[in-house]
Amino acid sequence: MMFISLVHHPVYDRRGNIQTSSITTFDIHDLARSSTTYGVERLYLVHPSPLQRQVAERILGFWEVGGGKEWNPLRSQALEVTRVTASLDLAIEDATKLTGEKPVLVATTAKTKEGQTTFGQLRKNLDRPTMIILGTGWGLAPEVIDRCDLVLEPIWGPTEFNHLSVRAAGAIICDRLLGKRNI
Amino acid sequence: MMFISLVHHPVYDRRGNIQTSSITTFDIHDLARSSTTYGVERLYLVHPSPLQRQVAERILGFWEVGGGKEWNPLRSQALEVTRVTASLDLAIEDATKLTGEKPVLVATTAKTKEGQTTFGQLRKNLDRPTMIILGTGWGLAPEVIDRCDLVLEPIWGPTEFNHLSVRAAGAIICDRLLGKRNI
Repeated sequence: MMFISLVHHPVYDRRGNIQTSSITTFDIHDLARSSTTYGVERLYLVHPSPLQRQVAERILGFWEVGGGKEWNPLRSQALEVTRVTASLDLAIEDATKLTGEKPVLVATTAKTKEGQTTFGQLRKNLDRPTMIILGTGWGLAPEVIDRCDLVLEPIWGPTEFNHLSVRAAGAIICDRLLGKRNI
Repeated sequence: MMFISLVHHPVYDRRGNIQTSSITTFDIHDLARSSTTYGVERLYLVHPSPLQRQVAERILGFWEVGGGKEWNPLRSQALEVTRVTASLDLAIEDATKLTGEKPVLVATTAKTKEGQTTFGQLRKNLDRPTMIILGTGWGLAPEVIDRCDLVLEPIWGPTEFNHLSVRAAGAIICDRLLGKRNI
């Protein structure tokens, strides 16, 4: 079983300081739709601020019981995968309850370093519950990466540039790990 | 050489009528960043409305000469790939000027049908200039699909659900066609 956590704190800001990023509507919709397409079990929106979690819950509420379900049932269906949590620990706890086993924690980064797990390696080892951890802002803080079991290699195309949005990176990660490989 | 056109008219709306969709900031940023990562030559934002094109130009202007370049040079760099055009014909004309050859037009769709080109087939045949045509709203109108040389198979994960955002679909298409395949 696959899980995704979208972490808003602690993450880097553009100056390299540790910050908290805001809940972004497009992240929720895009990552929920990608998660549902690729059979991800749950998408956790992790934010330490109660007010920001309330923003996320309000968006989800509109699609769950508000006018959204009638307006666009498919988008409503996609968002069913989403949960809002105050910390990564609570996300891990929820996933553990669901599967009976602590998920393998996989950090993501845009920087290539020694010892990273390749997409091919991870794809072949998805028999255990696995949680992909995506960072918002300018990426996950070291303290999040350090507590993970694995660090996934960055996504590279044929260029020297790999500054993808978290929405695009999340979609590509789903496709590389869970998509059909007959292409 | 690869080109992407993001078409805002004619596209379906949620009721199956032909409509014009609005310029969406997140589309521009996400698709420009994916395009630049994967070495796409140009990303065309195709919109028939002068006012909507002005919105797009204003966003691009902020990152080109406004405060955006200083604030986030990488995002500014990604947007250099972007051009705003009034029609698909003008996008094709620009791409043709650049390469000296009319690009192969490839329509995209979320619906599986007979005769579609697989990702594998297209990937092996990228020696000619190629333009991927993405639809906003609920997808490209038949008149756009009918004028294309090829229709690319939809993106499917392991589920029955494939309602990806155009930002996610664009990213996955880039990765499947232009990404490294050693995964």
